[in-house]
Amino acid sequence: MLPKGLLHPDMSHNLGIFSKLTEQAACFGTEPYHLKHLIRQPQRFSDFSLKTKELFLDFSRQRVDADVLQDLIILAKETEACQSFSDMAAGRIVNTTEKRAALHTGARNFFNNTIELKIGNMDVSPEISRVNNEIKNFSSAIHQGTIKGSTGKAFTHAVVIGIGGSYLGCEFAFKALKQSIDPKINIHFLPNVDIDNFNSVIKIINPETCLWIVISKSYTTTETMANLAQAQLFLKTHGLSPKNHLVTVTAQGSPGDDPSNPVLAAFHMFDFIGGRFSVTSAVGGLPLSLAFGFDNFERFLKGCHNMDTHALTAPEPKNIPLMAALISIWNTFFLNYPAQAIIPYSSGLSKLAPHVQQLSMESLGKHASTDGRFLTRPGGTIIFGEPGTNAQHSFFQLAHQGQAFPMEFIGVINPAYGGECAKSKGVNNHQELWANMIAQTLALAIGKEDEAPAKSFTGNRPSSLILINDLSPENLGNLLSFYEAKTVFEGFILGINPFDQFGVELGKVLASDIRKEIQLKNKSMDHGFDHLDDTRKFYLKTLFKGSLE
Amino acid sequence: MLPKGLLHPDMSHNLGIFSKLTEQAACFGTEPYHLKHLIRQPQRFSDFSLKTKELFLDFSRQRVDADVLQDLIILAKETEACQSFSDMAAGRIVNTTEKRAALHTGARNFFNNTIELKIGNMDVSPEISRVNNEIKNFSSAIHQGTIKGSTGKAFTHAVVIGIGGSYLGCEFAFKALKQSIDPKINIHFLPNVDIDNFNSVIKIINPETCLWIVISKSYTTTETMANLAQAQLFLKTHGLSPKNHLVTVTAQGSPGDDPSNPVLAAFHMFDFIGGRFSVTSAVGGLPLSLAFGFDNFERFLKGCHNMDTHALTAPEPKNIPLMAALISIWNTFFLNYPAQAIIPYSSGLSKLAPHVQQLSMESLGKHASTDGRFLTRPGGTIIFGEPGTNAQHSFFQLAHQGQAFPMEFIGVINPAYGGECAKSKGVNNHQELWANMIAQTLALAIGKEDEAPAKSFTGNRPSSLILINDLSPENLGNLLSFYEAKTVFEGFILGINPFDQFGVELGKVLASDIRKEIQLKNKSMDHGFDHLDDTRKFYLKTLFKGSLE
Repeated sequence: MLPKGLLHPDMSHNLGIFSKLTEQAACFGTEPYHLKHLIRQPQRFSDFSLKTKELFLDFSRQRVDADVLQDLIILAKETEACQSFSDMAAGRIVNTTEKRAALHTGARNFFNNTIELKIGNMDVSPEISRVNNEIKNFSSAIHQGTIKGSTGKAFTHAVVIGIGGSYLGCEFAFKALKQSIDPKINIHFLPNVDIDNFNSVIKIINPETCLWIVISKSYTTTETMANLAQAQLFLKTHGLSPKNHLVTVTAQGSPGDDPSNPVLAAFHMFDFIGGRFSVTSAVGGLPLSLAFGFDNFERFLKGCHNMDTHALTAPEPKNIPLMAALISIWNTFFLNYPAQAIIPYSSGLSKLAPHVQQLSMESLGKHASTDGRFLTRPGGTIIFGEPGTNAQHSFFQLAHQGQAFPMEFIGVINPAYGGECAKSKGVNNHQELWANMIAQTLALAIGKEDEAPAKSFTGNRPSSLILINDLSPENLGNLLSFYEAKTVFEGFILGINPFDQFGVELGKVLASDIRKEIQLKNKSMDHGFDHLDDTRKFYLKTLFKGSLE
Repeated sequence: MLPKGLLHPDMSHNLGIFSKLTEQAACFGTEPYHLKHLIRQPQRFSDFSLKTKELFLDFSRQRVDADVLQDLIILAKETEACQSFSDMAAGRIVNTTEKRAALHTGARNFFNNTIELKIGNMDVSPEISRVNNEIKNFSSAIHQGTIKGSTGKAFTHAVVIGIGGSYLGCEFAFKALKQSIDPKINIHFLPNVDIDNFNSVIKIINPETCLWIVISKSYTTTETMANLAQAQLFLKTHGLSPKNHLVTVTAQGSPGDDPSNPVLAAFHMFDFIGGRFSVTSAVGGLPLSLAFGFDNFERFLKGCHNMDTHALTAPEPKNIPLMAALISIWNTFFLNYPAQAIIPYSSGLSKLAPHVQQLSMESLGKHASTDGRFLTRPGGTIIFGEPGTNAQHSFFQLAHQGQAFPMEFIGVINPAYGGECAKSKGVNNHQELWANMIAQTLALAIGKEDEAPAKSFTGNRPSSLILINDLSPENLGNLLSFYEAKTVFEGFILGINPFDQFGVELGKVLASDIRKEIQLKNKSMDHGFDHLDDTRKFYLKTLFKGSLE
């Protein structure tokens, strides 16, 4: 039985700390608690920042003081967040609604044997190692050209067919790593069932040298199966065989793992690793190893493991993802901010926000508790973001003078570019980037008075700043694991199961009903839609008519 | 003197309608006003949707009824929104804080002469035509190979150096149009001062066949000047001359328009068209004409002009962008939703949300009125989005079961792909896409009861659905102009000047101070940062040390 979290309807055991935090939040609406004062307190910067060797978190410009932090830590202790995290990493059933373990940390636990990796009596480490070895051997054979396409040519491109958790994390890591490592195999993504996604992909690949990687745990995901059908048609049209051009990443025994279904190779994924936490399983492992070599994927895993170990072992006040989770909860449920922005000051991290958007919103955007009761209010918050400085010229106007929301900046100390740098205004581009990043976090906090309202800034807008040394596989791994750990800590503290996603089911059911109507029309053009409500009728008629007129 | 808008502190003249709308909003919190009931009312779909030949807007699943719409229309009349729009299109000074016209509609007004295009006594049409003719001739000469690079090779690629309004709209249009039109010149974007943005671009271009397009009205934008310096160094390193490889889009007389500064060509932009409204000026015109030919750019302008004409002439209840603006205001300021999502069910529209994010948040995210008073509350709302069905597998969990927010779906009736289609589950990919789009808008509205909270859906989540026939230049133009008109209508009704952006100034000032510190350190490594506050000191020391340790 998991402890009851902050949003649980019978949260009587932690009512004390809830009331106290609520009172404190009210104080933070008053002038003495404005960030321009808070950040001037002695030791503010050093007392409100944490670091490991690989990752630094500065929350000194968040609207918290020592008392709030202390009470947030009590909240974490009362909800047994660290115990739940340990249970998770030890393979216990923390995904209570689906009765599964959530062992993404196990996917990168082969650097030492300090953590047990048993689910019930089954030791899962050998299975994880087996799949990683298969990925290592397969990607090496592709790189050496011992595995080739139907027409005897070595592979140069791969298309990942997968959506949501089978796509966003891998895309984030691929785009970041290719800043500093030239891909041996270039990776393209085909998540969307929109045929124009397929249309874009086929314009840039050579059919003979392209490998298709189909990623779906159940091998029944509608979009993925539709794109697989389209890819098979494409291979056939070009006289190429699926058994030379198609690989699958799927659960053991799924239709994608059926030996009578000819594919080049099938790599297993496990029911104890969920989609949005699966970047370090074969879901990310195969594409990233094909792109950058298995050794670089292993470095990425090593980075994740470093942060996992920190999250598992650091005491609450020094635990970086836990403290970030508590601040996120404070901002959302006590200061009542409706959204959070993620602004990486790094082009290589351009897909970080979409990945964390899924990770956080799909994990926490729920109205039911782990024990199946309605929460006192729904969990989660809106996550959005674009890289800085681009975002400064896009939506920062509203961030400074409109509705306030907390922002998380990510700085990369060393860029990937190693060539000659021009100077403009006496500084190089990377220095200009940092001048802006530092300036924004201060401007948001401090504000500026001016007689003219249009030129005044109320300030008091909270932000954090995260630093990593560079976009190396290890440091990206640290960053990925930080966000994974932060998200699950939030779930544990709020009393939400971060590993299920029942909220996507209703849309699937209604889509299925509409699909049936389209099937009938495809079979017989005599099938009409007049028995349907006006909305369905209009859209289906328009789809078949092909025109608004 | 512009009329006072909804958020103006002395909005006494429209207090009546404000109170009435506030009372109505309270009703909408009660069960009879749940969307599952509203959408079953007779004629709901036909009474709550509008169309032109090119664009359809369905707001039947918004939380409004006939009374609310009527009162919103009164609000539009009282704030003289349509009059302000006419004033804008006639070249009057609607950008009151900067004392400028806002004549983006003039950039596509050469299809008829019904609208006067005078700013004061100056007729601006000849200037707009002159620049368009220059773009036509220049792009044609590039395509024919009569203008070539330094080494005598024809151009194949162009890099746009520009940020914010000099980039996002053009990127949106480029990515959408290339679904159906193969670019003659491939366009890449270099907005970010991050050197890794430059790093990515130079990996994919051939220096000898690449044209660099520098876009900045003032020719002083920090990021753009830094990237220009980097591009000039790159040209020099490759022995190529700026006068053969560099063109500018800038204001007449700016440093980028200086004949002593050797560039291949300079195209003028005007102070009466602001950055985020500039896609149809030379800012979008030059890159899009290079990519797709001037004829296709002209088709795009024609589409914009169609929607401009509709926005100018349709009476309030039939005016599509006005009604969309009113519903946005209702959702934000009466129903108090904190954000709006934009979900195009079209991969080609993948950059629509980032463009509209800037357009809306930078135009409306302000706390001052057009006449320089503090508003009763800040304007604007958070805009974010990703294409569907991708977003269904990312953040729709929260959209269905977390904090509610209005969503705007965009459907494209005909995909660009014209090849053979596979079928999966009896439907093709485009049909599956539409089944999902229709299902989502209904699921959000209706919800579903279930004894288990985790499987129940509260519904009552508002959405609109916009349709266009395809991604042709004309239809994209209609869509672009729809969002421009919607945004300016919102500004006029709220009492906000949608054309300035003073909220970005403080960050620039603080960045400049930090840049000076970096300059001093670059000049002399003896320069220390110990005189600075802890935040600046830490980040600047870390930047120069190059490591967290």
